[in-house]
Amino acid sequence: MINSIYLDNIIKTALLEDINYIDAATDCLIDSEQVNTARFLAKDDGVLCGIDAALRVFELLQPQGFEAEVYKHDGDVLEKGDIIAEIKGKTTALLKGERTALNLIQHMSGIATATAKAVKLVEGTKASIADTRKTLPGLRPLQKYAVTVGGGKNHRFNLSDAAMLKDNHVDAGGGIAEAVAKLKKKLGHMTKIELEVRSLDELGQALEAGVDVIMLDNMDCETMREAVEITAGRALLEASGGITAETIREIAETGVDIISMGALTHSVKAFDISLKIVS
Amino acid sequence: MINSIYLDNIIKTALLEDINYIDAATDCLIDSEQVNTARFLAKDDGVLCGIDAALRVFELLQPQGFEAEVYKHDGDVLEKGDIIAEIKGKTTALLKGERTALNLIQHMSGIATATAKAVKLVEGTKASIADTRKTLPGLRPLQKYAVTVGGGKNHRFNLSDAAMLKDNHVDAGGGIAEAVAKLKKKLGHMTKIELEVRSLDELGQALEAGVDVIMLDNMDCETMREAVEITAGRALLEASGGITAETIREIAETGVDIISMGALTHSVKAFDISLKIVS
Amino acid sequence: MINSIYLDNIIKTALLEDINYIDAATDCLIDSEQVNTARFLAKDDGVLCGIDAALRVFELLQPQGFEAEVYKHDGDVLEKGDIIAEIKGKTTALLKGERTALNLIQHMSGIATATAKAVKLVEGTKASIADTRKTLPGLRPLQKYAVTVGGGKNHRFNLSDAAMLKDNHVDAGGGIAEAVAKLKKKLGHMTKIELEVRSLDELGQALEAGVDVIMLDNMDCETMREAVEITAGRALLEASGGITAETIREIAETGVDIISMGALTHSVKAFDISLKIVS
Amino acid sequence: MINSIYLDNIIKTALLEDINYIDAATDCLIDSEQVNTARFLAKDDGVLCGIDAALRVFELLQPQGFEAEVYKHDGDVLEKGDIIAEIKGKTTALLKGERTALNLIQHMSGIATATAKAVKLVEGTKASIADTRKTLPGLRPLQKYAVTVGGGKNHRFNLSDAAMLKDNHVDAGGGIAEAVAKLKKKLGHMTKIELEVRSLDELGQALEAGVDVIMLDNMDCETMREAVEITAGRALLEASGGITAETIREIAETGVDIISMGALTHSVKAFDISLKIVS
Amino acid sequence: MINSIYLDNIIKTALLEDINYIDAATDCLIDSEQVNTARFLAKDDGVLCGIDAALRVFELLQPQGFEAEVYKHDGDVLEKGDIIAEIKGKTTALLKGERTALNLIQHMSGIATATAKAVKLVEGTKASIADTRKTLPGLRPLQKYAVTVGGGKNHRFNLSDAAMLKDNHVDAGGGIAEAVAKLKKKLGHMTKIELEVRSLDELGQALEAGVDVIMLDNMDCETMREAVEITAGRALLEASGGITAETIREIAETGVDIISMGALTHSVKAFDISLKIVS
Amino acid sequence: MINSIYLDNIIKTALLEDINYIDAATDCLIDSEQVNTARFLAKDDGVLCGIDAALRVFELLQPQGFEAEVYKHDGDVLEKGDIIAEIKGKTTALLKGERTALNLIQHMSGIATATAKAVKLVEGTKASIADTRKTLPGLRPLQKYAVTVGGGKNHRFNLSDAAMLKDNHVDAGGGIAEAVAKLKKKLGHMTKIELEVRSLDELGQALEAGVDVIMLDNMDCETMREAVEITAGRALLEASGGITAETIREIAETGVDIISMGALTHSVKAFDISLKIVS
Repeated sequence: MINSIYLDNIIKTALLEDINYIDAATDCLIDSEQVNTARFLAKDDGVLCGIDAALRVFELLQPQGFEAEVYKHDGDVLEKGDIIAEIKGKTTALLKGERTALNLIQHMSGIATATAKAVKLVEGTKASIADTRKTLPGLRPLQKYAVTVGGGKNHRFNLSDAAMLKDNHVDAGGGIAEAVAKLKKKLGHMTKIELEVRSLDELGQALEAGVDVIMLDNMDCETMREAVEITAGRALLEASGGITAETIREIAETGVDIISMGALTHSVKAFDISLKIVS
Repeated sequence: MINSIYLDNIIKTALLEDINYIDAATDCLIDSEQVNTARFLAKDDGVLCGIDAALRVFELLQPQGFEAEVYKHDGDVLEKGDIIAEIKGKTTALLKGERTALNLIQHMSGIATATAKAVKLVEGTKASIADTRKTLPGLRPLQKYAVTVGGGKNHRFNLSDAAMLKDNHVDAGGGIAEAVAKLKKKLGHMTKIELEVRSLDELGQALEAGVDVIMLDNMDCETMREAVEITAGRALLEASGGITAETIREIAETGVDIISMGALTHSVKAFDISLKIVS
Repeated sequence: MINSIYLDNIIKTALLEDINYIDAATDCLIDSEQVNTARFLAKDDGVLCGIDAALRVFELLQPQGFEAEVYKHDGDVLEKGDIIAEIKGKTTALLKGERTALNLIQHMSGIATATAKAVKLVEGTKASIADTRKTLPGLRPLQKYAVTVGGGKNHRFNLSDAAMLKDNHVDAGGGIAEAVAKLKKKLGHMTKIELEVRSLDELGQALEAGVDVIMLDNMDCETMREAVEITAGRALLEASGGITAETIREIAETGVDIISMGALTHSVKAFDISLKIVS
Repeated sequence: MINSIYLDNIIKTALLEDINYIDAATDCLIDSEQVNTARFLAKDDGVLCGIDAALRVFELLQPQGFEAEVYKHDGDVLEKGDIIAEIKGKTTALLKGERTALNLIQHMSGIATATAKAVKLVEGTKASIADTRKTLPGLRPLQKYAVTVGGGKNHRFNLSDAAMLKDNHVDAGGGIAEAVAKLKKKLGHMTKIELEVRSLDELGQALEAGVDVIMLDNMDCETMREAVEITAGRALLEASGGITAETIREIAETGVDIISMGALTHSVKAFDISLKIVS
Repeated sequence: MINSIYLDNIIKTALLEDINYIDAATDCLIDSEQVNTARFLAKDDGVLCGIDAALRVFELLQPQGFEAEVYKHDGDVLEKGDIIAEIKGKTTALLKGERTALNLIQHMSGIATATAKAVKLVEGTKASIADTRKTLPGLRPLQKYAVTVGGGKNHRFNLSDAAMLKDNHVDAGGGIAEAVAKLKKKLGHMTKIELEVRSLDELGQALEAGVDVIMLDNMDCETMREAVEITAGRALLEASGGITAETIREIAETGVDIISMGALTHSVKAFDISLKIVS
Repeated sequence: MINSIYLDNIIKTALLEDINYIDAATDCLIDSEQVNTARFLAKDDGVLCGIDAALRVFELLQPQGFEAEVYKHDGDVLEKGDIIAEIKGKTTALLKGERTALNLIQHMSGIATATAKAVKLVEGTKASIADTRKTLPGLRPLQKYAVTVGGGKNHRFNLSDAAMLKDNHVDAGGGIAEAVAKLKKKLGHMTKIELEVRSLDELGQALEAGVDVIMLDNMDCETMREAVEITAGRALLEASGGITAETIREIAETGVDIISMGALTHSVKAFDISLKIVS
């Protein structure tokens, strides 16, 4: 569930952006009392995400309420031609909200669908699929939610809620052991620590230092397999960097715990859903 | 040029989202007086967009200013390996702003690069490439700007600044002729009118009614060629609907004036740019 | 119809400004359960605008709803003494919202009334009355709406949605022909171009260059008549600059298409409406 | 001095409203490095207000700063033709900020000028000129400031900072004596109490009850003179309701302490100031 | 009554702050259709404040409404064990809003309780208890309201609505007499003037100058008694500075009119209230 | 380091709240060119927090900058009489920002001082002191920062960044084992899980289920000692509920890892710091 306060803020921003002052065509031609029914229709196969967000668009435009019949919910598998929902209300609100609602649901379903594909590809292995902080400005709450709807997991939400040490932090901190020790001394007990490593040597130091998660940055599968063996469950291992549909299965089979993919949120393909007035 | 007030709002939203309270790793380990130089590097071939936006991220985090050497500007063609810019400032600001800056520049360069490819594909024809309102909530100002940087043109920014009549408007308005007449009577003299048509018959009515632009919705190339002939310059013709890299050239060669592509902004592939501390 | 998201933002700003923490008199003296009926009354002759905005003030102060009987709607002609609407609800909400509601409806009706007067003065000519960007900060959506309610038309909403070339643009662009050509190459197909001219010579160049609208800046009627003749329908002609009730008819009779008047929004005389508790 | 945080918020709102995404003409035609000097010029006689606000517009558009030579300051008397200030900076910023700056300075100078005229009309009497809460939504801070610049005084800023009892409050409170007593018991010691009266009888009760200020609502001059005599300095007397240039002097000569005029802020005539590029 | 627009803004800020994206435990484990009843319970003796604010939290999380049975209202005396209210609604909303609701009601009841204690201590004297501007950023509307609920009075809300002269103002203004005279000339008739004095000599000057309120800053009781005698009702006297439970009664008995206490709002002890699911 | 975007937002809110339109006394009496030096002085013994925030207040009021000499930094121990900093700038800015700056620094230093006292009391034990989500609406970023400055640690920032299971979650989740298993399956790998237990039996189940942290809710010291023994390092143990200065040492000596105290942020005693103009 997306925090409803966030969602309303994003939708209001989108409606101001998309409508601005008036809807030139609608305000001139459509009677403000006209009522119609419109249907959300899947134009492709995938996983639905964002139907609540899309319906909320119309509620904000017509506070006295819309009638809505919802057939598919977030997380449901869609086949091309599926009717997702039907809504009945003022035609002016339908036309003014259409683009904003579709922009939301298509983007979110695109993320959920891509995530579900990745999850499917690693099925049967130990690996879970996670997102990253490579999200679009202002849309992280929606994007991270869509990843979970597609079966993926959320990596940290922001720089506050978990610590990730990269080379610059390690260098400034005086090496892996010392940097991790400093962090542990300062950070609260609810904050996990992840360390990015580039070699098995660094992996060893990370394990010694006692971190929660180790990121294997752009390692080949052979090395990752060794890493899994060395680690032997003492920390979670996260594979990261340039993961593709072609390589993901092999990576998952190395035994890593998490595969994180920036593309889930930074390179989203919209999922095709239409909204048509049907009566 | 993006309106600077907008840009600052978007960046501040992104920084609150990405940092939230603290940068757990950086605030614990990096001395607040440490200074470093970092380099934006192209990891692929394409068109740069968003370098000013990316630099603004660091200015907002360090108001007393960054030193920046900018080698490539928005619109410049990038080859893999190109140094785009080097910035020197507080390491804490570099690390805290890195993700936000990259999220912006990668998304905007992704749009510019995709647009430039489409523009290239129609080179030599009369057709220009345009965006749509299929943008991501809150990001339309950045996305529409990136389309122009890639050589495309902006369709209307919102529902206020031009009127587009679709079937629902036409039906409610009493047919094409009457609907257009009503609109002309009500709208201001600076507002263009576009009408979506689905057949050559409707095209004829649209020309008769005297609209500025006619959208040929999902027509085959044969019909579009006829449409161009019939129109004979009396209105601009816009091809729209399911345009792909495979079909775009043939469409352009029908003689249409504009090809509008939602994918430019709703299905963006991030362009790979890195930011690395180099000294 | 004003975008409802905008309207709510403006009203909330106004209520925070007008009430701040408490209503010192009302909160101390009026029982929070007391209910009254109040009546909006026209104290002058004119055109109503802003009744929905005024009612929205009370809805925002009492979300569970007001009873409202609305006798006059936006655009209706008012005669002194007309009852516009009656609302029934909590007395505390009535008293707290009164000033904000009246400030809105009086300002908007003032604009509609002034616009209607100008429209009346040019009746029978070809000229329509348009507003300008000379609006009050933050109130443009309300002001531009009120102009249309009074029978006027909206000029562009902002600097993005249409291009207006003034002397500085023309000079920087290398003269009229070249400047217009550059603009056409860069701007999207939904953006109209207007050029401000000061002489018949410049008018000729503008027609040659092919712009949509030509602004005749502070020209005398004789010259405007000539301009109309020369133009012969090849572009729309807009008269602008120092239009008054005394001069407007003669200007309209020159045959120009649009007369734009900054005073409609920059020098508004509030239209007198009262709100009195009647039972 | 307007609270600078407020001022910046209002200007940013205005710039977003006026520019939206781009300045279609300026961004296409003006070189971003071009620098010009522009001059604010008085086109009428009056009192200047808003020059700091106008200059702040350009600072916000060009944070690295403008050169400004300021010849006239808020409160200075202007004669037609006076040069108010000259500013030098990027031409793009000059053109983008021009309308917003002028909308501010013309509105504020309009208020200051009208106020100064009213102040002049009552010169030599005891009466001071005050504003009201009849202001435009979101602009109260600027409007109330402009009144003081024109030599007027500010009535209360909002419903919190002073209590004004009207008939509804008095009725609900059980009559003048009881209502005032209740208020005094509840309100803080820094809050003045004003009571609106409609007759000399009510005036007597108000004096008895001990209020700080008494508003004589729409009384004729004869009655006001009596009121002054009866009051004999025991409270301040404020004349209110339908004051015009024709009646104000006679009202002032009745001996009232304050004359409050809604028209100062609800029916503002813009004061004509231009901004022209001079080199 | 707190301005409802303010209250909603504060609650939305708090909910974004406390929930951020998701409620990790609740969203994973609690069925979104589950409904429960929860009870607000007093864990201590004191004065209730903030029950409406607390209930509003749940309304904002579940716009279709909560069932609420409210047994105690703002201002009611609470005994440990008292049931304040019972609310029934979605369990997810109950759990997500719990912390925000409690943070509000505990802080506000803490202020009301401390104020009531101070009021009790001065019972039978002439002195009223007032707050100050020593409030917590962003919370002044809630804090000042809570003081009144506890039986205290509000000092000025901000720097605009009343003038307080301290030594720096007096020095810059040329001494007490001249500074007060200047202020009277410039400020509106609804603005009270208070002057801080440090000696009986300054008190004499203040009385001479004719101010509304005189603040006796950190004076001993003996001197305050003299001040009361000298003043003889010509101005209100406010005792301020380092008031404690031990000293307040003696101070009140000096005859001062107001005792202002920063601690009421700057050093608040939360009042213990719990919210437990009961069925 | 507090996120600077957050800090600026909080300060701007506070300045709007405290100044509103004008500073009635300062704007009337202080010359806008007058410059003074003011000194922050400790009036008590404690730990400084918020000096950067306080200085930022003045920067925002005078963007061209203040001269500041800073003698004590966040985290420094203060003795009564210590000069913390001296700032030189416009007197008007000094007076307008004074209250806001002091409200911030006094609140934050109050938290840091109270935290440092608690940390001192457990010195030599294994226990660290942590805050909670019992913070004041809108101030959490400042409050949590102040806790770390006082030597404490931050518990989770919000409901997203770590999961805390209470009885309602456990009941709905089907008991401890099942609830924890569900959570682990759904939550990302960077999210820690804490479980609240009320008995040693529940502790055993929690250990079995494998959670990161176990909260011992209102347990007596004897039971906590047993809990420590049973746990034997398999999870972190957090003591919570009604901790006071009297009981904290004994609790720490039970061997628990964390002692969390709501009072650090919900019942803050302001630390006395003054700002006086010295030249």
